[in-house]
Amino acid sequence: MPWPPLRDALIGDEPYGAPQIDVPVQLNTNENPYGPSQACADDIAESVRAAALTLNRYPDREATALREGLAEYLNADGGQGLTSANVWAANGSNEIMLQLLQAFGGPGRTALSFAPTYSMYPEYARDSLTEWVSGKRETDFSLDLDAARAKVLEVQPAVVLLPSPNNPTGTALPPEAISMLCEAAGNGVVVIDEAYGEFRREGVPSALEQLPQHRNLVVSRTMSKAFALAGARLGYLAAAPEIVDAVRVVRLPYHLSAVTQAAASAALRHAPELLGKVADLRVERDECVTWLREQGLQVAESDANFVLFGTFTDRHAVWEGLLKHGVLIRETGPDGWLRVSIGTPDEMKQFKNALVAVMEEAR
Amino acid sequence: MPWPPLRDALIGDEPYGAPQIDVPVQLNTNENPYGPSQACADDIAESVRAAALTLNRYPDREATALREGLAEYLNADGGQGLTSANVWAANGSNEIMLQLLQAFGGPGRTALSFAPTYSMYPEYARDSLTEWVSGKRETDFSLDLDAARAKVLEVQPAVVLLPSPNNPTGTALPPEAISMLCEAAGNGVVVIDEAYGEFRREGVPSALEQLPQHRNLVVSRTMSKAFALAGARLGYLAAAPEIVDAVRVVRLPYHLSAVTQAAASAALRHAPELLGKVADLRVERDECVTWLREQGLQVAESDANFVLFGTFTDRHAVWEGLLKHGVLIRETGPDGWLRVSIGTPDEMKQFKNALVAVMEEAR
Repeated sequence: MPWPPLRDALIGDEPYGAPQIDVPVQLNTNENPYGPSQACADDIAESVRAAALTLNRYPDREATALREGLAEYLNADGGQGLTSANVWAANGSNEIMLQLLQAFGGPGRTALSFAPTYSMYPEYARDSLTEWVSGKRETDFSLDLDAARAKVLEVQPAVVLLPSPNNPTGTALPPEAISMLCEAAGNGVVVIDEAYGEFRREGVPSALEQLPQHRNLVVSRTMSKAFALAGARLGYLAAAPEIVDAVRVVRLPYHLSAVTQAAASAALRHAPELLGKVADLRVERDECVTWLREQGLQVAESDANFVLFGTFTDRHAVWEGLLKHGVLIRETGPDGWLRVSIGTPDEMKQFKNALVAVMEEAR
Repeated sequence: MPWPPLRDALIGDEPYGAPQIDVPVQLNTNENPYGPSQACADDIAESVRAAALTLNRYPDREATALREGLAEYLNADGGQGLTSANVWAANGSNEIMLQLLQAFGGPGRTALSFAPTYSMYPEYARDSLTEWVSGKRETDFSLDLDAARAKVLEVQPAVVLLPSPNNPTGTALPPEAISMLCEAAGNGVVVIDEAYGEFRREGVPSALEQLPQHRNLVVSRTMSKAFALAGARLGYLAAAPEIVDAVRVVRLPYHLSAVTQAAASAALRHAPELLGKVADLRVERDECVTWLREQGLQVAESDANFVLFGTFTDRHAVWEGLLKHGVLIRETGPDGWLRVSIGTPDEMKQFKNALVAVMEEAR
């Protein structure tokens, strides 16, 4: 064994994460620029104060109250008759995905996605010893349904893992893609990662609507984005109860703290306020897409709170140029493209001014 | 693939966890019976209120302020010059152990412990696809150093995992056992799980004292027990910085929420108050050991906040009898033994009265 005795597959790997750089305009990790209101923060604090006096006791292992609140919330956004038995919660979507792969992946099994897509997915596969296979998206980042079906039938994945809207491209899956994947996957599980689901455009349905038709469909969500709660780490999924039961076998006991349960339940009570900001961000996003196109840039259709644009011969130079102007975006996605998160109107103005300046300097 | 498509190794497994039964006297999960004071709860709530306004942002991935606080705390309990570079924190010791096995275990590698010991350990091995091997303790639950060394040399484990004090027996490891294990393990990592470390008796050293001598030594701790913070889920480890760096490769990004970081840092500021109760619990524990022996029972030496006693021909009947008297203890450990957590003086009185009654009924 080497020293330190890292297992072979990890040697040379770097810890995952975007650069954390302290600049005025942070548009790199698709955070919600609007923090919780004072009323919401106060509700969170008072809920935690109530929980704090009994923190000597282990938390509710089942997080039942929180899961009931989440089910109710989902039923107002495409879910039909979901209850706590359909919902599971964990420390961020990260942990939800790892638990799914720990339950359904493992040696001799394969997880499949279609690139370009979220760059954490291969890490969940690596950590659960699941083989990782990636199909391809079209040049507009959509999925060719026939090619995707053929890939699923060829690979026979235990887990299909697809975001909708996709990160980093912003592309939503049409409903027929989801039903096709669920049918082609047989007993394999199809996980539709709706981390950015609340930002989808008018008329784009949630995968939640298809849960009654497909027992192998899992829809994951997070409170990090629309709920402006990235710091609280609360991811969750909706699925058939037997999927929830399977995840329970691999969850670490008491994985979700009483403090997290209290804070997330409090934030859920402020859903209308938090989702009001989502409407503003969708408008800002659509304006950003239009503006970028007016600059002669290619822009991917976006149903998320970020926009992928390009292409640049030297994207790193553009990223660095923006950083010099105090604007941090993300160097991710296919070569030549960059991703910007949607911020406040003022932040977007600073981004636009900086981009104009950087593009002029480059001429 | 079966439906649901659980991987083979998990089929038939039940979710881990002690029965959660609502009875007046809860002495089954080694919780601290004394909750945080109102002052501590208020400090936690106000710290969370301050953090809540920026929960739209991801937390500090490195949890630096908390790790600094933990290092300082450890330096007052056997640590020597530890800094945040030596400390890693996660959602409970559970996650610490899983991360260690994800980094250093895996297929083709082995984790070794000595039974009877903590029943979650094989689950970490299962979830990280690490082979699990268990050596044996002596009849008084101590470790025979020659036999243990021979076992380490035979198995060549990537990770040795041993609690001190041991759960469920309460047995502390002598310092020479720790140095022997570190030497015998070569580049393998030796994890001494001091979840109950603060309850050790006068004169029993912490494994922290040996960190300067052994780069492959990891000491894990938790805020669940002495810190009365089981509900907040905060486990941590102290080790050489290269061990911390290795764990960083497998940690999920932003695994530790801003709310958890704030709550744990607040509780750390109340360490003197919380540790004052530890002194009371140690006295209560020693009295419990004496009393059980006076009843003619066998009792394991305990450096923890629980006591293992027996033996009973039908331990389940005794456990059930106590439950009927409103006292919940744990049916765990070698056949015939039972484990009771140390509660308040009043709870211990109820336990003793119930045990006397149950034993008389059995006659």
